[in-house]
Amino acid sequence: MKAEIITIGDELLIGQVIDTNSAWLGQQLSLLGISLYQRTACGDSKEQILACLHDAELRSDIIILTGGLGPTKDDITKKTLCEYFNTNLVTDEKVLAWVTHIFQMRKMPMLDINLQQALIPSNSKTLWNRSGTAPGIWFDVNNKIFISLPGVPFEMKVIFDEEVIPLLKQKFELPTIYHRTLQTCSIGESFLAEKIKDIENNLPSYIKLAYLPSVGTVRLRLSAHGDNKEKLIHEVSQICNQFYERIGEYIYGEDNDNLSEVVGKLLKEKNKTLATAESCTGGFIAHQITSIAGSSSYYKGSIISYDNKIKTLELNVSDVILKNDGAVSEACVKQMAQTILNKFDVDYAIATSGIAGPDGGSEEKPVGTVWIAIANKNEIIAKKYNMGDNRERTILRTSLMALDMLRKMIL
Amino acid sequence: MKAEIITIGDELLIGQVIDTNSAWLGQQLSLLGISLYQRTACGDSKEQILACLHDAELRSDIIILTGGLGPTKDDITKKTLCEYFNTNLVTDEKVLAWVTHIFQMRKMPMLDINLQQALIPSNSKTLWNRSGTAPGIWFDVNNKIFISLPGVPFEMKVIFDEEVIPLLKQKFELPTIYHRTLQTCSIGESFLAEKIKDIENNLPSYIKLAYLPSVGTVRLRLSAHGDNKEKLIHEVSQICNQFYERIGEYIYGEDNDNLSEVVGKLLKEKNKTLATAESCTGGFIAHQITSIAGSSSYYKGSIISYDNKIKTLELNVSDVILKNDGAVSEACVKQMAQTILNKFDVDYAIATSGIAGPDGGSEEKPVGTVWIAIANKNEIIAKKYNMGDNRERTILRTSLMALDMLRKMIL
Repeated sequence: MKAEIITIGDELLIGQVIDTNSAWLGQQLSLLGISLYQRTACGDSKEQILACLHDAELRSDIIILTGGLGPTKDDITKKTLCEYFNTNLVTDEKVLAWVTHIFQMRKMPMLDINLQQALIPSNSKTLWNRSGTAPGIWFDVNNKIFISLPGVPFEMKVIFDEEVIPLLKQKFELPTIYHRTLQTCSIGESFLAEKIKDIENNLPSYIKLAYLPSVGTVRLRLSAHGDNKEKLIHEVSQICNQFYERIGEYIYGEDNDNLSEVVGKLLKEKNKTLATAESCTGGFIAHQITSIAGSSSYYKGSIISYDNKIKTLELNVSDVILKNDGAVSEACVKQMAQTILNKFDVDYAIATSGIAGPDGGSEEKPVGTVWIAIANKNEIIAKKYNMGDNRERTILRTSLMALDMLRKMIL
Repeated sequence: MKAEIITIGDELLIGQVIDTNSAWLGQQLSLLGISLYQRTACGDSKEQILACLHDAELRSDIIILTGGLGPTKDDITKKTLCEYFNTNLVTDEKVLAWVTHIFQMRKMPMLDINLQQALIPSNSKTLWNRSGTAPGIWFDVNNKIFISLPGVPFEMKVIFDEEVIPLLKQKFELPTIYHRTLQTCSIGESFLAEKIKDIENNLPSYIKLAYLPSVGTVRLRLSAHGDNKEKLIHEVSQICNQFYERIGEYIYGEDNDNLSEVVGKLLKEKNKTLATAESCTGGFIAHQITSIAGSSSYYKGSIISYDNKIKTLELNVSDVILKNDGAVSEACVKQMAQTILNKFDVDYAIATSGIAGPDGGSEEKPVGTVWIAIANKNEIIAKKYNMGDNRERTILRTSLMALDMLRKMIL
């Protein structure tokens, strides 16, 4: 069983939109045991969409299209599908009523172009979109499935979850692919590879290992193919045990865990609280923590002292420290962590101060120099890093390192 | 002149990595006047990469590959390119010296697999990678250009900027495509379309308009194709003038401007300062502002009062307000804004409080209810919104609306 994704839109090609839909769809298909064979992005051109449909149909069983279902002129997916299947558009009265209802609810006038949202190719099945005005479309032609979904991510996701998955399960007897991913940080890809070389060389042919490096982290993904899911899960689990024995100190989570979620779970389990005092990370650590639903039960808040005056006024960093050691120093981050711990009355505190760049570096403290402090009621640990010369990466890496230092302190 | 991108990696197909490289490359090609015809993502499979290379060569003049150049087992791009061109790998001594130097600098032992980074197909040209150990590779075969780049984004970008662009300019006489994008917020796609319908219908055939909606914003992109760049720029500029006249109040910027950058420029120009007091946005507004290099000249900092006690202790929100109005109320955000304005001694302040969800909603204040206040020394404006039931979108939309309210107040 092979699937392909075709994403439609000039905006994808000229790079004004990052294609997050394909990644999400890839994850869902993988969970269903459907292997995504290929992904193609093409422009808003009828000829090109037709060519992509033709090629994909030769290679794969399920072809998922996203984009081009909106109400405006550059949205040509429906017309093109009609041409491909030699059919025409008919009004779906249920969709028409729904679209009308949405506009009434929003107290907005219904425009002519909005009426077209209810048009569906006559040889297709409507996929209900309870989050918007553009329905999805399902074609089952010569035992190949074509699915057309809107490009707006949350509408696409709702339709896929509620309409597409049940239909796919009904149509196909799905095979078994099992993935498990270990998340590591504080170690580079080739050092990991060297440490687990022998385990990797002994993997059976139906279990593949992939290294997925990104800023500050490397994920190790095992993918097992076969018929017997229980057996695959057991085998992968045994391999993972070997990894935990060998490189456990670097593993902070599995699958889609992220570090702030892992730290949040630890705090919740131990009924502990956290506050932050950020300078160079400028709120990114707070954002990472508060992205997690339920974080208000352990996270109290932050003082972001982007200006040194705020460090003095709100975080008791003395003029002496700022003058002698500077804002990017061990003394400064330790004071920031100590103050926020007391002031916000929490069990743990994180403090950061550094030079994110591009300006502000010196010979002694080049751009990328960062101090991180982690405190609890008994101790304060501070470490210095050089995060390199890219502002965005420095903010991201510093946040990851700070959360990982906190994770280790809690453990 | 047509280009294609082939991104290689199982991690892209199963959706564990979001492909940001293609979007960036699409932007760069577009700026060079090279039209990106298609983009394909395929797995770490030799057969599939060969098939993709074959198909792409039939369609396009420039084929750019990313990924699969790393030191580990699943990195097979170089070997596959050797098979495609029927050639073999040879050591590039300059690269070998560079890789050795990097490992010495980092005080890390050089591993066997790292030596392989210096191997280059014999019919190719090395593209220097000053940011890492995997060089890029340039093939010029039968007047088709194949370019293989690492998948790590910042390495890919450095090689493209420093090595690929000069070679492309040397090889091709590049045609003219001119894009200009207007960024709007606070208005939906179909309402925009209705307002500018007549302008859109009168566009010449060589100028295309695209609507690019994302959470909270819609971008309008004009793309003009032709020979005479000056003429295209002039025509597009006249159309943009019509847009500014018709829908100017919704336009906050152009091209790659983002709202926090636009607000930052305004503050800098007027020599004004800003502080924030965030609750439901949990540091995301601070992060948006401090993502901009140079923001320390106008942004002083924030108090993130995720816990109501912090609202009372640090932002003077009285128990009476918390009891009678609640934390998500006009009175609360106004007090938060007023306090941070005075406490951090700034010209402008932003405050947010809301229910990001999924928990915490009530009939009176459902999930998604958000209050935003903007203050300066003379006035405080507060507005209530419903941002919907998705936590991530509520945080993002609230940040955008808050920054847009501030933009309008500064103007």
